[in-house]
Amino acid sequence: MPSNDKLFAYNLGQIVPLNEATLHISDLSVQRGYGVFDFVKVQQGYPLFLDDYLDRFYQSAELMHLAVPLSREEIKQVISKLTDLNKLPVAGMKMILTGGYSEDGFTPMNPNLLITQLPLTLPSADKVAKGIPIMTHDYVREVPEVKTINYSMGIRLLQEQKASGAEEVLYAKNAIVSEFPRCNFFIVTHDGTVVTPASNILKGITRKNVLSLAGRRYKTEVRDIRLEEVLQAREAFLTSTTKRILPIVQIDEAMIGTGKPGEVSMQLLQDLISLEVEQVAAAKGW
Amino acid sequence: MPSNDKLFAYNLGQIVPLNEATLHISDLSVQRGYGVFDFVKVQQGYPLFLDDYLDRFYQSAELMHLAVPLSREEIKQVISKLTDLNKLPVAGMKMILTGGYSEDGFTPMNPNLLITQLPLTLPSADKVAKGIPIMTHDYVREVPEVKTINYSMGIRLLQEQKASGAEEVLYAKNAIVSEFPRCNFFIVTHDGTVVTPASNILKGITRKNVLSLAGRRYKTEVRDIRLEEVLQAREAFLTSTTKRILPIVQIDEAMIGTGKPGEVSMQLLQDLISLEVEQVAAAKGW
Repeated sequence: MPSNDKLFAYNLGQIVPLNEATLHISDLSVQRGYGVFDFVKVQQGYPLFLDDYLDRFYQSAELMHLAVPLSREEIKQVISKLTDLNKLPVAGMKMILTGGYSEDGFTPMNPNLLITQLPLTLPSADKVAKGIPIMTHDYVREVPEVKTINYSMGIRLLQEQKASGAEEVLYAKNAIVSEFPRCNFFIVTHDGTVVTPASNILKGITRKNVLSLAGRRYKTEVRDIRLEEVLQAREAFLTSTTKRILPIVQIDEAMIGTGKPGEVSMQLLQDLISLEVEQVAAAKGW
Repeated sequence: MPSNDKLFAYNLGQIVPLNEATLHISDLSVQRGYGVFDFVKVQQGYPLFLDDYLDRFYQSAELMHLAVPLSREEIKQVISKLTDLNKLPVAGMKMILTGGYSEDGFTPMNPNLLITQLPLTLPSADKVAKGIPIMTHDYVREVPEVKTINYSMGIRLLQEQKASGAEEVLYAKNAIVSEFPRCNFFIVTHDGTVVTPASNILKGITRKNVLSLAGRRYKTEVRDIRLEEVLQAREAFLTSTTKRILPIVQIDEAMIGTGKPGEVSMQLLQDLISLEVEQVAAAKGW
């Protein structure tokens, strides 16, 4: 962040230059990694699907027993102010809620709310056209339904991931696949059904949108997926707010399908981009 | 921490008033809960078993792929300076190493090192004499051998714990007990053997010392312990740097032994206190 000299952030009740946004080290995120967050994509000044992200943010906070100090309307006002001030064409708006300044270093106090906005680079056309290799890791997140700030496993695996040439790590506990550290997972079966895991996942907003778009064209299923089935799939892809849809062409040593991004993945990406464009147009009254 | 007006801390290379010790919010502890720490007890100006704690701190850092920016000697000098400045009779010295100021909010950069010293209150004589009730929870820590800052589960369970009247939560995955969020676990079997879990635990320094002290008087075993065996145990206790040995008299709904702290637990507590006194005396040349 130090390079973003002209950006503003919301920090502990105030809008301040991002460079000056600090927390005392007694904050429970620093002391105990305790906090939740959410992340909204802003395109042409419009935060896409904001209500869905706010729903999830408040739900995460509740499940971790943290009270959000601002109402939804107040958060929307802050997001609007930051968007106006920062003037970023494509950006990620991140809301972090921590356990607050803890007196005993363990018990949550009044939660601290931070909202930052940073430029966002979407995956390159080249990356989408080629698809990506991924690796698997035997793991399931601790509280998968909550968007906590705990990414110990995903970050710890970065070295192994880079050494293997994989671009993402797919968690698969006891050979049942669930999700990536920051993305959801889909396959397209040989009969053309679009399938995504049902359990032990964070329910992504992009996952929800893609499921809904897929339902217009294909059969869809939300259920457990075994690793063997992934290896037999015709296509596989990931979804996330920042990556939209990214085709997967290799998993560990095995090629997926033809080793090239599949038709269904590319069609759904087009549909998703159209949906985003419609949303922005509707919001702006175009 | 806000009440500790006259204390100093080591923060990002400098000794500063604790109240002024801040981190930029781009730190990976705030963004992703990524960091490790360790915690040493300081008695009469002497950090007890410091080398053991430093061994573990450097090992935790290595296992999470974080480089400690200071050498052991430099850390010892900082601890010595803070001890002189803060003049606390009984204190906890906490070293936290975070993933640093991350540019992309995910990839660790140069780690940030914080060292704080706060007053420490040992368990009251009354609490030791009565023993404590505990509850169990089906869980095992993600990377148990590393002292990460991730305490999402332990903190999330605080409400349930308080509602149940339990003072600590014992993790037991598939009915095999492991550890508490911040303490190790021991039982004394009906034949007088002192037993502590072997796997899925953080290897506590107090656990190591108690095992060694117990070996002088009793038979000891380090192995898996099933929950049924705990319910049949003659005594149970926890160990930690801040709590030393605390007898456990109730687990969920079941009474342990006679429902009062046992002989072996109290003997080992006396032995541990003697060991601490010897260490301080030897260090001070008394």
